[in-house]
Amino acid sequence: METRRVYLDHNATTPLHPEVKKEMIEAMEMFGNPSSMHAFGREAHANIEHARQSVAGFIGAHEDELVFVGSGSEANNTVLSLFACASNLCIPGFKARQTIITSRIEHPCVLETSQCLAHRGTTVKLLDVDRYGRIDIDQLKEYLSDDVGLVSVMTANNEIGTLQDISEIGRLAHENGSLMHTDAVQAFGKMPLDVDELGVDFLTMSAHKIYGPKGIGALYVRKGTPYCPFIRGGHQEKGRRAGTENTLGIMGLAKAVEMRALEMEDEARRFAAMKEVLVKGIEERIDNALFNGHPELSMPNTVNVSFPGAEGEAILLYLDLAGIAVSTGSACASGSLDPSHVLLATGSSAERAHGSIRISMGRETTMEEIEYVLDVLPGVISRIRSMSTAYIKGEEHVAAK
Amino acid sequence: METRRVYLDHNATTPLHPEVKKEMIEAMEMFGNPSSMHAFGREAHANIEHARQSVAGFIGAHEDELVFVGSGSEANNTVLSLFACASNLCIPGFKARQTIITSRIEHPCVLETSQCLAHRGTTVKLLDVDRYGRIDIDQLKEYLSDDVGLVSVMTANNEIGTLQDISEIGRLAHENGSLMHTDAVQAFGKMPLDVDELGVDFLTMSAHKIYGPKGIGALYVRKGTPYCPFIRGGHQEKGRRAGTENTLGIMGLAKAVEMRALEMEDEARRFAAMKEVLVKGIEERIDNALFNGHPELSMPNTVNVSFPGAEGEAILLYLDLAGIAVSTGSACASGSLDPSHVLLATGSSAERAHGSIRISMGRETTMEEIEYVLDVLPGVISRIRSMSTAYIKGEEHVAAK
Repeated sequence: METRRVYLDHNATTPLHPEVKKEMIEAMEMFGNPSSMHAFGREAHANIEHARQSVAGFIGAHEDELVFVGSGSEANNTVLSLFACASNLCIPGFKARQTIITSRIEHPCVLETSQCLAHRGTTVKLLDVDRYGRIDIDQLKEYLSDDVGLVSVMTANNEIGTLQDISEIGRLAHENGSLMHTDAVQAFGKMPLDVDELGVDFLTMSAHKIYGPKGIGALYVRKGTPYCPFIRGGHQEKGRRAGTENTLGIMGLAKAVEMRALEMEDEARRFAAMKEVLVKGIEERIDNALFNGHPELSMPNTVNVSFPGAEGEAILLYLDLAGIAVSTGSACASGSLDPSHVLLATGSSAERAHGSIRISMGRETTMEEIEYVLDVLPGVISRIRSMSTAYIKGEEHVAAK
Repeated sequence: METRRVYLDHNATTPLHPEVKKEMIEAMEMFGNPSSMHAFGREAHANIEHARQSVAGFIGAHEDELVFVGSGSEANNTVLSLFACASNLCIPGFKARQTIITSRIEHPCVLETSQCLAHRGTTVKLLDVDRYGRIDIDQLKEYLSDDVGLVSVMTANNEIGTLQDISEIGRLAHENGSLMHTDAVQAFGKMPLDVDELGVDFLTMSAHKIYGPKGIGALYVRKGTPYCPFIRGGHQEKGRRAGTENTLGIMGLAKAVEMRALEMEDEARRFAAMKEVLVKGIEERIDNALFNGHPELSMPNTVNVSFPGAEGEAILLYLDLAGIAVSTGSACASGSLDPSHVLLATGSSAERAHGSIRISMGRETTMEEIEYVLDVLPGVISRIRSMSTAYIKGEEHVAAK
């Protein structure tokens, strides 16, 4: 008997949408370099410009404000690295402000790049979050000063799903004369996003979280915003990102966006119903399950839950044997034995953080799959807990409270 | 009647190899995030590690020495940007040497990144080239000093096809205790390359020049070489390049490499025969045709020729009307009205540089297509020249001598 395969790790990555697959297979015939002036090049150029319009339109941006890049990580590195340029006078008038404000629960590509900038003399201030992972707006107000050049806060957290009030944060940043960036990789394509409503100057997107290909992302850059290319040389993307355009990836991203516009709304309703069943089912069938993230201000596809006394990695492996794919923390940090920096920031104990799993639903997830998880998970947790002496003694239980 | 389409711009980019296309379509089913620990992730991980072995093996490297990146431009930016880190003490012991030697005919992504580093305090020395585009080895010896951290010279020039003696340059660099980088984007897959024979510490590769997909490249980094990630955050590529791996692109690159290993040798012989016919044909049928690049130490697929009195862009457009795709200079610089920096470096006048076209053959190019070019080109040149008053007067003719 073939093992059943239930994929519930859509925040890590998603399968290609059948329409994206079709589009990319067709686009494989179109191979010209968009920079070439001959017919082969012009065809490719026209196609990527059409794709740019689609993606820009989806977030209420003008096509000139969209830069295609290789990944969400590259987009985030691009925004933060402006400050390395700022300190070197690449961007006139941008030197004075040498402080960045970001949060403790950002993706590692934001946190590590910030750290690197700190070594180079930029001041980095990290916002704390409450137990649900919402940033402290009062602390933001306190941190905002004449020296703050950029505020970077993610729209939705990849691990716990918590949403931030980007409009309010952006408003405060702008009042202070600071630029506003949001890493929207997880929110993009899961909920409507409009750059003007959000009040952001930069917004990071990635294709592979929305049933598009890996290796392609986009960065929104508001018209008139100080900018310096991260990958230099070559005039591609109007001089904003060098390297021959990933035409296949760009067309895949545009098709993925087109499908999101059609499917996103109904899907959110389906997710909400499945999430309710999943959360209730876990509460009813498993003792001492502690949910992480905000109960309401959260992505409807994401459930993050800790089972004190059961290591997240063990849960993951037992579920994997039953054909169920979930994750512990983010895929980008997996392989690391450190507890999730996101859960620790919410005040979670290391034990609780170690015992957490993330279940993230996608467009093909069915209620029947959720029921299957609810059938399998209780046995997995009790088996692991029964092997853990600490838990039997009740130590972890107490520690987790 | 449908216009004939003859693609002779393979140095700009290439069509996907049918086997690459097949491989990528199959790989579209495999969507896991290689960082995920579950079955979906492990499958993707195994596939990219297998691809890494293939690509590394092709250049005589160990798989641990290969980093997948988003493009050749990113690879080149990565190598040069080590010096921005060096000045900031990211890499212990790497600070002392703050001079880079490169050449005047490098790709813009090397030249512009060098320029940027120069703004940040790195000393950049540019090597001159002779009239064939070969770098001046005596000047290199003169430039090498205790302060030189890196020598970066391309293996084959994209515009004129001239090859450099990388082994000798690498030997001199290493004797001096400097690191050696070669941008091998154009040579990779056109001729055998072995990192030990070349004596390089870094080597840049790109997939889309060898019938693989756009948006994927690789950087060879010799074991033990000082290194700092360019895109930060995330532990992918053993901490050397953050961002979810472009699995589809990586598998496409590996398949393209596999096909190169099979086809490269025979193809080079075919190119040599076609190049001879092309060069002789142009000499016989067109007055005052001036060939650029080295007559022997050059890529066999590339012919760069100037027709004084005829603007390169006009030639390109007339050929395009006849269905023939060639380029003026590199695709990366097209759209710019500046004459080729490569031709100017060879001592060419601006007029000669403006009047040049590049014809670059590929695996599907036939002798019959070359004959077609030889049928069409003479008429195109004489038509354009007849419209050019300057040429009629003989001024350009004289200027180009």
